[in-house]
Amino acid sequence: MGNESARLIAGAMSGTSADGVDVALTRVTGRGLGMKAELVRHHHRPYDAALRASIFQLRDSGQTSLSDLARLAREISLTYALTVNEALSGANLRASDLAAVAAHGQTLYHAPPDTIQWLDPALIAAEVGCPVVSDFRRADCAAGGQGAPLVPFADYILFRHPTKNRVLLNIGGIANITYLPGGLANADGVIAFDTGPGNCISDHIQDGAVDAGGRLARRGEVNQRVVREVLNGEYFRRAPPKSTDGPEMIGAFGEAERKFPMNRVTDRLATACAVTAASIASAVTRFCPAQVGEVIASGGGTRNAAIMGTLRTELGGVPVRTTDELGVPSDAKEAIAFALLAAATLDGEPSNVPSVTGARRAVVLGSITPAPTPSPL
Amino acid sequence: MGNESARLIAGAMSGTSADGVDVALTRVTGRGLGMKAELVRHHHRPYDAALRASIFQLRDSGQTSLSDLARLAREISLTYALTVNEALSGANLRASDLAAVAAHGQTLYHAPPDTIQWLDPALIAAEVGCPVVSDFRRADCAAGGQGAPLVPFADYILFRHPTKNRVLLNIGGIANITYLPGGLANADGVIAFDTGPGNCISDHIQDGAVDAGGRLARRGEVNQRVVREVLNGEYFRRAPPKSTDGPEMIGAFGEAERKFPMNRVTDRLATACAVTAASIASAVTRFCPAQVGEVIASGGGTRNAAIMGTLRTELGGVPVRTTDELGVPSDAKEAIAFALLAAATLDGEPSNVPSVTGARRAVVLGSITPAPTPSPL
Repeated sequence: MGNESARLIAGAMSGTSADGVDVALTRVTGRGLGMKAELVRHHHRPYDAALRASIFQLRDSGQTSLSDLARLAREISLTYALTVNEALSGANLRASDLAAVAAHGQTLYHAPPDTIQWLDPALIAAEVGCPVVSDFRRADCAAGGQGAPLVPFADYILFRHPTKNRVLLNIGGIANITYLPGGLANADGVIAFDTGPGNCISDHIQDGAVDAGGRLARRGEVNQRVVREVLNGEYFRRAPPKSTDGPEMIGAFGEAERKFPMNRVTDRLATACAVTAASIASAVTRFCPAQVGEVIASGGGTRNAAIMGTLRTELGGVPVRTTDELGVPSDAKEAIAFALLAAATLDGEPSNVPSVTGARRAVVLGSITPAPTPSPL
Repeated sequence: MGNESARLIAGAMSGTSADGVDVALTRVTGRGLGMKAELVRHHHRPYDAALRASIFQLRDSGQTSLSDLARLAREISLTYALTVNEALSGANLRASDLAAVAAHGQTLYHAPPDTIQWLDPALIAAEVGCPVVSDFRRADCAAGGQGAPLVPFADYILFRHPTKNRVLLNIGGIANITYLPGGLANADGVIAFDTGPGNCISDHIQDGAVDAGGRLARRGEVNQRVVREVLNGEYFRRAPPKSTDGPEMIGAFGEAERKFPMNRVTDRLATACAVTAASIASAVTRFCPAQVGEVIASGGGTRNAAIMGTLRTELGGVPVRTTDELGVPSDAKEAIAFALLAAATLDGEPSNVPSVTGARRAVVLGSITPAPTPSPL
């Protein structure tokens, strides 16, 4: 595709860890599954501590006042806009260079067919000065799908290989994988699902703080009975497609802990990391239909040595690489994915993968909020 | 404008009374303030009693669980979609004839700059099978406006007169007026604001039930001290632009009642209607800058003889007509207005009126959710 089809999209993502917003200024060419993406700049801005606490408190209790909920949309959206504007000025670009901001929103609730990806797209459009594409999950839910995972569309575009069977692994609050058979002609054979917890249990144990590098976890001892108890749960035995969320996984871990109590925080963290690694490895082994050539990892969890060490051991000889080695910075990957999803939306192209979400058909995702004032020609 | 510019839009409105959804299949030609609208069919579907009760309960308490909130979006959206589909089949039309559904959503919270107009646009798009334009108020709020009123844009298009100064009056849960000076060349001289309560106090007194025709109110006696006490409140003395909501007006009435208690429900209803009529008349007299030639009324309150009788008395010689007499059925007016607003959104045209919302500038309103599957050519 020539330059005339290129457009710059600011993918903006805040995951279930609610640690902040990742923006990937992404140059997109082509259409549909034939798109190509080039990362121009990645920028991360953490949420204010108070905002992060509000999000956790709201999600944990499942209760809110409408005024708090409205305030939350404003604060989340202002952080999104600020992060995009910082990324633009860092790259010497302007809002008028952007075709759109692709804003994921903050997941407050996800129980298909219901989902709440919270955001005020008009506020982002006003603060940045360009159109916003948002609320990507609802259309898949309305088509009978789980509304997740959506990243496999981008995994196919970015990482498909002519011969090798690849597994893309993302370890955020939740961990998920995408299985891409080698030489696949379209997205129909893609399998993808949440394997279980990513960092959500560790984050919960530390009340929202991050165990950087997995240092505390590595000082603890794994309670194997807890690991077995959690992995024996229904979710881990069920065949994909399937998806889960932080509260469900934190709940499962909590139940196992009540049976087999642990005293030290380090042991609890070590065990949480072991559950994450074991559930990923088990999913790769049990639910990918052919021998996996390599696992390509991304997400905050790749920096956790306790998770990655155990994962490599459990996967035996399968090489575990990172998306960084393939030119896609781990921290920017999901934001790039949503830039690609937004490009599809702007083009009127479907972008869910029904074989992974369970939707009845491929549909166009998202809502488009125009720029507040039409851009001068 | 020729037929080639004509597009059919299903305006879909549910007001603060939360009595159900009004759909106006509207044929729109032209662009911006030069648009013309022709009503093809109006159809009303009441909310299920349980849904209506949930909405009232949520708004009154201001508290919710996220699961209830998500379920509410689904139920509201399914009612919207069903009402549109019934209107289409009643008119022998199909979804493919529609350029879009203009879906107002249910107001759960409105305290500018925050606003929650609750809806799942992707579900409506899936159930009807066409694009949806929704969430009209956020962009005006993001531009510093009150996010309301938005109907004056349509009032200007539908009702401007070459010489006469007209007041458009809508009596829903809240009552609002639009002042249209005669011979106005653009929308800059338009004044519009919420005058105060419409039916919200009566509805509240009757726990959500409607006093049909104002029959109960007409059997009661007006407590003039309550009327004076309420109208002496800050809101009624403040100059426009201004907007209010049901809880604020119900609260003001409740305070006055505590000072001057009334025993009979009929007296309370009569007094509520008198407050509505007196606050409208006072607003027309005090806040319209020139002599008003006629008042053109619409909304459910026009069927309340207690309100309309008192209003005519208080307005003295100013004729009070209804929009029906001018070819715009009262019950369809707001839905037609949102069809016009959606047409502007699809055209990339601004449609707030900054002189009435207080916004810093004219902006494009709403978010566009594409049809789930692109329509065949």
